[in-house]
Amino acid sequence: MERVLRLVISCPDRVGIVARVSGFLAHYNGSILEANHHADLEQGWFFMRNEIKASSIPFNARELAAKFAPIAEELGMSFTVTDTYVKKKVVLMCSRDSHCLADILNRWHSGDLPCDIPCVISNHNDLRGLVEWHGIPFFHVPVDPDNKAEHFAEIERIIDEHKADSIVLARYMQILPDSLCQKMPNQVINIHHSFLPSFIGARPYHQAYQRGVKLIGATCHYVTAELDAGPIIDQDVVRISHTDVVEDMVRQGKDCEKTVLARGLRWHLEDRVLVHGNKTVVFK
Amino acid sequence: MERVLRLVISCPDRVGIVARVSGFLAHYNGSILEANHHADLEQGWFFMRNEIKASSIPFNARELAAKFAPIAEELGMSFTVTDTYVKKKVVLMCSRDSHCLADILNRWHSGDLPCDIPCVISNHNDLRGLVEWHGIPFFHVPVDPDNKAEHFAEIERIIDEHKADSIVLARYMQILPDSLCQKMPNQVINIHHSFLPSFIGARPYHQAYQRGVKLIGATCHYVTAELDAGPIIDQDVVRISHTDVVEDMVRQGKDCEKTVLARGLRWHLEDRVLVHGNKTVVFK
Amino acid sequence: MERVLRLVISCPDRVGIVARVSGFLAHYNGSILEANHHADLEQGWFFMRNEIKASSIPFNARELAAKFAPIAEELGMSFTVTDTYVKKKVVLMCSRDSHCLADILNRWHSGDLPCDIPCVISNHNDLRGLVEWHGIPFFHVPVDPDNKAEHFAEIERIIDEHKADSIVLARYMQILPDSLCQKMPNQVINIHHSFLPSFIGARPYHQAYQRGVKLIGATCHYVTAELDAGPIIDQDVVRISHTDVVEDMVRQGKDCEKTVLARGLRWHLEDRVLVHGNKTVVFK
Amino acid sequence: MERVLRLVISCPDRVGIVARVSGFLAHYNGSILEANHHADLEQGWFFMRNEIKASSIPFNARELAAKFAPIAEELGMSFTVTDTYVKKKVVLMCSRDSHCLADILNRWHSGDLPCDIPCVISNHNDLRGLVEWHGIPFFHVPVDPDNKAEHFAEIERIIDEHKADSIVLARYMQILPDSLCQKMPNQVINIHHSFLPSFIGARPYHQAYQRGVKLIGATCHYVTAELDAGPIIDQDVVRISHTDVVEDMVRQGKDCEKTVLARGLRWHLEDRVLVHGNKTVVFK
Repeated sequence: MERVLRLVISCPDRVGIVARVSGFLAHYNGSILEANHHADLEQGWFFMRNEIKASSIPFNARELAAKFAPIAEELGMSFTVTDTYVKKKVVLMCSRDSHCLADILNRWHSGDLPCDIPCVISNHNDLRGLVEWHGIPFFHVPVDPDNKAEHFAEIERIIDEHKADSIVLARYMQILPDSLCQKMPNQVINIHHSFLPSFIGARPYHQAYQRGVKLIGATCHYVTAELDAGPIIDQDVVRISHTDVVEDMVRQGKDCEKTVLARGLRWHLEDRVLVHGNKTVVFK
Repeated sequence: MERVLRLVISCPDRVGIVARVSGFLAHYNGSILEANHHADLEQGWFFMRNEIKASSIPFNARELAAKFAPIAEELGMSFTVTDTYVKKKVVLMCSRDSHCLADILNRWHSGDLPCDIPCVISNHNDLRGLVEWHGIPFFHVPVDPDNKAEHFAEIERIIDEHKADSIVLARYMQILPDSLCQKMPNQVINIHHSFLPSFIGARPYHQAYQRGVKLIGATCHYVTAELDAGPIIDQDVVRISHTDVVEDMVRQGKDCEKTVLARGLRWHLEDRVLVHGNKTVVFK
Repeated sequence: MERVLRLVISCPDRVGIVARVSGFLAHYNGSILEANHHADLEQGWFFMRNEIKASSIPFNARELAAKFAPIAEELGMSFTVTDTYVKKKVVLMCSRDSHCLADILNRWHSGDLPCDIPCVISNHNDLRGLVEWHGIPFFHVPVDPDNKAEHFAEIERIIDEHKADSIVLARYMQILPDSLCQKMPNQVINIHHSFLPSFIGARPYHQAYQRGVKLIGATCHYVTAELDAGPIIDQDVVRISHTDVVEDMVRQGKDCEKTVLARGLRWHLEDRVLVHGNKTVVFK
Repeated sequence: MERVLRLVISCPDRVGIVARVSGFLAHYNGSILEANHHADLEQGWFFMRNEIKASSIPFNARELAAKFAPIAEELGMSFTVTDTYVKKKVVLMCSRDSHCLADILNRWHSGDLPCDIPCVISNHNDLRGLVEWHGIPFFHVPVDPDNKAEHFAEIERIIDEHKADSIVLARYMQILPDSLCQKMPNQVINIHHSFLPSFIGARPYHQAYQRGVKLIGATCHYVTAELDAGPIIDQDVVRISHTDVVEDMVRQGKDCEKTVLARGLRWHLEDRVLVHGNKTVVFK
């Protein structure tokens, strides 16, 4: 696969940003493979993502960032430069249900998901075999309801030790402490098994069944301090009917969950998701 | 179109109901064109809908109901018999937005919607021309916020005068008084412009925009005393993105609203929707 | 609504195009409200669409085009500049089915469709009343199978007389002569009632029924000399089941047809559809 | 899970079938948990599926079939009685791509797919580890293009030895010989990576890319002698755009393929799919 540098920018909107950025890239003969921008006119904010053919410019990611820094400063930009040859390290967390975890592992194992998975952490031991078959270390950190602090300290230690860039809660079913979320803003991805903001919290399929909805859904979002209220990356739904009891919803919902999570994770890994306030720009 | 009698039943579940009903119909040589049943095992309730070729039995709807009454009584059934040659009278109510109203009128005018529309009632005069072009009486009943009682008394008078079987709130944007809803249980259909139970109440697209959801939706439901909380007949969604501002959502949502409303109304007219508690069985 | 100039470009791909175009716009202080570009790496072709706030630059569309022409020539670009205050003239053609026509007319009448409709042409007289109620001239040009040439000469005369920019075949059901299509390349839009390339030609729902598919669809495309083979603008599907006979497919398909046609038409009117070979780039 | 007997029937349509079948079941106090019927009025054929609570009747499947046989003979029915405690044996066949296989294995391993998987057969050795980790025997039977007969004789031997009820071609990519398909009519399930009947045969995503479609799809169908032309069980689509090259379609199509295959397989295992001619009735 072609090596690519990605320059991702957000800043206050004004005239001439695209000209400055594309002029900068053209100056160094940078070949742009894909580019997107979006101006949020209401908020006066500008977002941009550029994929640059690495071989077309005489810089690596660090050098490109250094060259670009003066422009960024002048225009009040926050920006990142990433290199597709440097894979993000993603720690997966799961509980007992295997559908999301197995799906991610298979994508990764097939070479379809551009990341490293340094380890999997779970509060149950059930999925150890599956994880270890993929050659990935598995850490069983049981939750003691009376001593959650210790539990999460251990988790944080493992995450630090493995130098995680991002965390995926693949149906982990436990609420992470704020401190951890704040340490990794917009890097902790959760899949919630409802079409948020409907059915926040526990047992959303039971809530959906009680309400008698005709579609059930799943939501992939960044985790923030407020439960199930973080910036939404992707959502989808599946049609159900009166013949479906909760167990049927759970089963059909799983397909929705794993697809939405995989899609959201891929966009995250490809630096396609830009967060502004509590909303996301997703450059597909 | 083939004339059809519809026998629609709901009752406590027990062994042998289908045998009794189908035995009854077979006894009179009734040719069943379509039949559906559903047992809600959790609630112990049974639902059934039969389409009987009218020419195959020596009865009209009233006689069929009379013959069937003893079985119904024995098994604790509530039931209806309808005749496709007797169209339901549906009063439409609208405000200023024409998309749902125009869509229903076009379906009706094309012979695609099996009902009569004795009149349209609106709190604004904007859509009079459209309605009258279709040859349907239009009543303008403006809402006086200080005298809603009188307003709704007038509406109720018009509905009574036109012998309405059902009412469709085609983006009427006013809350009907409880008394009217209770007078016509499971006969007043509303289209709400969100994927309920998300974004109940006013300005759901604005709420959706604020929350940053990735799908917007529409919900067709029977109106009950509690706002936007009645039994759901149908729902659907459309995908949006960060490029869509509220106006874009409104525009794309309209397509969803009119499709969902038309689908729900059709099922209602064909006696496919059975209400039990706050949920519906929809025999498609 | 904000007045906008649209600069739409396609040209061979090379380094620096975005820089040149955005530099040109920034030079005149042009405020870009929306911009999209796409590089087709396989074909080596570049596509770009810019929405410029008209009040931010000291030019009208014609002047902007003149200023831009040297750059376009240098880079081998074909380009257009349009002004949202100059609406495209769209002639609608229909037959007997009203669903697509009524839907477009209602959108136009509600101010939702940014075009003028100078007239409607039909080979039947059925929809005259509907069209004339909207204040639009209606031309009945019956097809004489033995003298199609004369028929289409008359149609062409009407189209010329009304200075049509585009034509929409809203279920017109007749094949336009090549000469007409070639006169207006990428300006004649058809809605075909199948998910192309499945079920080309006549009676696609009957074909779908025979094949036993589980989804039916609709395709909005530009008309070319080869039947149902032109560049596809949009497609969508609806789920059906074994209970649906051809009439049910026709009815449900109509909803799909009118939605897909309206979407494709809107993108066309907003200069979002760029044709290259037999494919489209659609900047949504 | 409740033990259930399933009585599945198809026969010429006539008055009184439901009465006879439901009367028969009621006579033995059979508790019907779910029942569906469908009359194909055009073909004059009737289809029925009943789920009977096993504990409610004093028979096992074999005895129920024997009791029912006289009715079946009288009414010209073909029928089956199955017992949910007797799982179907499904042999999986795959090639190199793991997405469908891994998905089915995970569902099976999670207890979500009601079947036994006696073995997996592949023409490549790549997926051996994955299969064997699940505790399932893996047979590598390489295809020798010059000696396909021998290859398929070996496959047939393995299938016979494992007493397969059904075969799933989980992206096997080889065409089975007619003899094998005919030996197991309506028991060999394939997933084709297009929305049939579009893009029959090899490299459907390449065909889709060339045609410029806006949706790609997948089709789950029973295999017959004619390539990709057997009765369709299920289909679905995903939306693509001009930014998607063939590799993107392949990747997104995989999600569609595995979901559609899993859905079709489940319905097959639950005896929900009835084949008549080249079409299916699917009782969901």
